[in-house]
Formats: sequence, structure tokens, C-alpha cells
Amino acid sequence: MAVAARASAAGMIGTSLQGLRIVLVEPSHPGNIGAAARAMKVMGLRHLVLVNPRFFPDPEATALASGAEDILESAQVCTNLDTALQGCHKVYGTSARGRRIQWPASNAREAASEMLADLDTGDCALLFGRERTGLTNAEMDRCQVLVHIPTADEYHSLNLGQAVQVLAYELHMAALTALPAQDVPTEAVPEQPAPIQDMEGFYGHLQRVLRRSGFLQEVRATRMMRRLRRLFDRARPSQNEVNILRGILTEIERWASKVDRKDQDSL
Amino acid sequence: MAVAARASAAGMIGTSLQGLRIVLVEPSHPGNIGAAARAMKVMGLRHLVLVNPRFFPDPEATALASGAEDILESAQVCTNLDTALQGCHKVYGTSARGRRIQWPASNAREAASEMLADLDTGDCALLFGRERTGLTNAEMDRCQVLVHIPTADEYHSLNLGQAVQVLAYELHMAALTALPAQDVPTEAVPEQPAPIQDMEGFYGHLQRVLRRSGFLQEVRATRMMRRLRRLFDRARPSQNEVNILRGILTEIERWASKVDRKDQDSL
Repeated sequence: MAVAARASAAGMIGTSLQGLRIVLVEPSHPGNIGAAARAMKVMGLRHLVLVNPRFFPDPEATALASGAEDILESAQVCTNLDTALQGCHKVYGTSARGRRIQWPASNAREAASEMLADLDTGDCALLFGRERTGLTNAEMDRCQVLVHIPTADEYHSLNLGQAVQVLAYELHMAALTALPAQDVPTEAVPEQPAPIQDMEGFYGHLQRVLRRSGFLQEVRATRMMRRLRRLFDRARPSQNEVNILRGILTEIERWASKVDRKDQDSL
Repeated sequence: MAVAARASAAGMIGTSLQGLRIVLVEPSHPGNIGAAARAMKVMGLRHLVLVNPRFFPDPEATALASGAEDILESAQVCTNLDTALQGCHKVYGTSARGRRIQWPASNAREAASEMLADLDTGDCALLFGRERTGLTNAEMDRCQVLVHIPTADEYHSLNLGQAVQVLAYELHMAALTALPAQDVPTEAVPEQPAPIQDMEGFYGHLQRVLRRSGFLQEVRATRMMRRLRRLFDRARPSQNEVNILRGILTEIERWASKVDRKDQDSL
């Protein structure tokens, strides 16, 4: 009885975490890939994505996976982050560097609950950066939430395998806690949030318009775009809303393009 | 300021966990000893006890400690469990085998809170068994509480280093939660949302620009503005962000106003 209940709970946890991909960005040490796979499998996560791994496949990864070889075998290897995030509606990024004003931050426990709720809506990604240098600022720009694992020793952070272990564990605990609570009132999300690639399309378009209008000056462009990303990300625009925002940008470009034409005419 | 608060919080966590010893019983793989030391140090635990380690000291332990060599250097090596538990008033033992009727069992999270409370009274020990076979029944008899780390995959349990990592993390989280509120390192607090009248000012400005650009047509203006309001309201923009949005609108108006001027010139 207890065993059956356990097995079925484990199955349900697997299901509730199914849409989550663990993305390792440019891991250098194959042992960490193996340790991550093991940590994932033990905690009910299955979808591993590797962006430009230095060595993969690799015997050391296989050795450290130790029972989680199936996770390695089905791992998706990508050459860029865009491909890795394709189809995700929300991206979480781990950061050892504590809080940064430009990004909303959650600790591992809060983030695990948020992710679980987000997985109801569609696929999500959880990014882990390089062993030495973590995620770049450009990569963090792709994240809606930065996740921080509280530690006592700021000088010696967790290694990659340990960080995946702690987050996989928190996700498992969140899924376990959430099991009987189907009737927890969730915040009303009016429409499905737009997929990441459409948000990126919008941000690219916005940046172009802001540059052409003169609003975006080179010296502060990166910071400003980061602020705007945070603002729009918080609203979690739907596909329809992204279409509206792009419609506005197109109309403004058309309106102002008369200037450019007239400027050219007058030359 | 934030850094000082953090350092002091880390110090207090170290103090509240000071009386806890992590006891590894007959570890076979020196790498696991090193990984355990690293996991401990990162989470504010310092007291490592090794009962009959197969190899210690060992270069592999040192390599995997990676920054936590001090924990290894001060580790206590014992030939029997009695010595290891000397002076402890409560003993917790980890078990991968799920709950056993003879022992009270807690999951890692519950156990971490209990341990923290027990540490107020005096020293405690947390036992981890052998890599393959765990703790013997005789050793479990020495434990007042068995600790179980919930996992999804009953067939592939955590390895020793991962188990120490999860429990050290839970202990750290328990200590962090127990801190007086003002000492808890806070996550970035989102800025105060802008007052209603500023939001109204923004919506008025937005509507004017959208009308002039040609995007907002009379027939659908009310509905469209309602949708845009809903979108921006969801993001709860701060005063600063409202200023940025209005700055964008002003810049776009200036950019496009050249058109109007030229249109008038050509009349």
C-alpha cells in the first residue's frame, strides 16, 4: 500500500515537472554533466539540454551519471541558447552572485514553487551557467527570474552538480507539497503567455524603434533595454498582446518614416 | 550595508549550527569526503567526523573539497561510533530505505528544523552511512530520529556527497528562517508602484501618441486602450518606470513631429 502510494506520488511528480528543461550553458567538466543527470533523475526531472558542452558525450559524464545514463542519452545538445529555449514561456537563471537590481530574484525554494505554478501554463527552462563564470549578462537578460541558492560562505559557492542537486531537490519538494492541493487558488492568468521567441521578436523591434527615435542612446542602451525587459516581463504579455505591441511599433515606424523620406527628399 | 548584513547573517547561521557534527560512517570513497566538506562549508557547517574512513587523508578528498580544506584538516577521525558521538545529546541518522517502523522518521526539511531546535540544548550528530549499505541496524539503534530525503526514483538514491549537500542546505535554510527578521538577507525589493495619477498621466499620453500615429482608430479606441491598461497594470510600473515610458513617448512625438511640421510647411 505504502509502496503503491509512493510509486504513484513519484509518477505524479514526474508529470508535474515534465515541462521543465534543465539547461547547462557551456559546461566545461563532463563530470558535472553526469552529476547533474543523476541529481535530476533522483528528483524526477528528465529533460536535460546542453548548450555547447566542451566534452559530450564523455566517459566521465557517463560514470558520474551512475544510473541516470538514460537522461544523458536523451539530452538535447544545442549550439545556442535560442534553440535551447525554443517553446519555453518562462526562463529562470541561476546566479551565485547574490542580488542584482535589474533582475527579479528568488531564492531556490521560492523559485521552485513559482516554477511549478508556471509549468501549469507550459514549458519552462532553468539555466545554469559556466562553472567559473556563470551566466553572462546577455544570458541573464533572457531570464525572467534569477534564482539564488542561499549559502553561508560567499567565497565558496556550490559547484555546478551541487547547484543542480539543490534545485532539483527543491523542485521535487515543491511538487510533493503541491500534490494534494489541486484546489489552491492560483492567480488568474488571463491568457497563455507568449512564447519566448515572440517576446524576443518584440524586444528586438522595440530596440530598433527606440534607437531610430533617438530615445535609446548607445551609452545607456543595454541598461535601458534591460529595464524595459524587466517591466514587460512582469506583465507576462500574451501572444495577442505581443501582436498589439508590435502593431504599435510598426505604426510608429510608418508614421515617423515619413520624416526620413522627407529628410531624404530635402537633400 | 547589504554586504555587512549578509556577513553578519552568515556568522549567526554558523553560530546556530556550531554544535552539529556531521558523522560519515566508514566512507569508502575519499572523493565523497571532500564533496561533503565542500557542501558543509558552503552551508555554514564546520565539524566533520569520520568513523573508520577507508582512505584519509587522501589527495582525492582534498581535490574535491576545493576551498574547504580547513574542514578536512580539522576533521576528527575515530575508530568507533561511541567516540564520534561523545557529548552529543541527540543523534540523527540518514536512511535511504524509507521509513522503518522501529524508528521515528522525519524528512530532511522537518529534521533540519528539529535539529536546529535541539542544538539550543547542546551538541547533536547527523550520521551518514556507508556508500553501498548505509547504516547498520545497530548504528540506527543509536539514532533517536531517522532522516529520509524524499526522492522520485526509489531505485537510484542520492550518493553520499549529494545527501550531505541536501541536508546541509536544509540546515542552512532552517537557520536562515530562524534568524530574527532584520538579519535575514532580503531579496531585492521591487520598487513601489507608481501612484494612480501618474499611471493616468501615462495612459493619457499613450493614447495621444497612439492616436496621432494612426494606430488608434476611433472605432476600436476604447477597447484597445482598455487592453493596454490591463497589460501595463499587470506589470505594476514604478514611478521610475513610468518616467521612462513617458520619456519614450515624448521622444517618439519629437521624432514624428518633424513630419507634422514638414506637412504644414508644404501646405
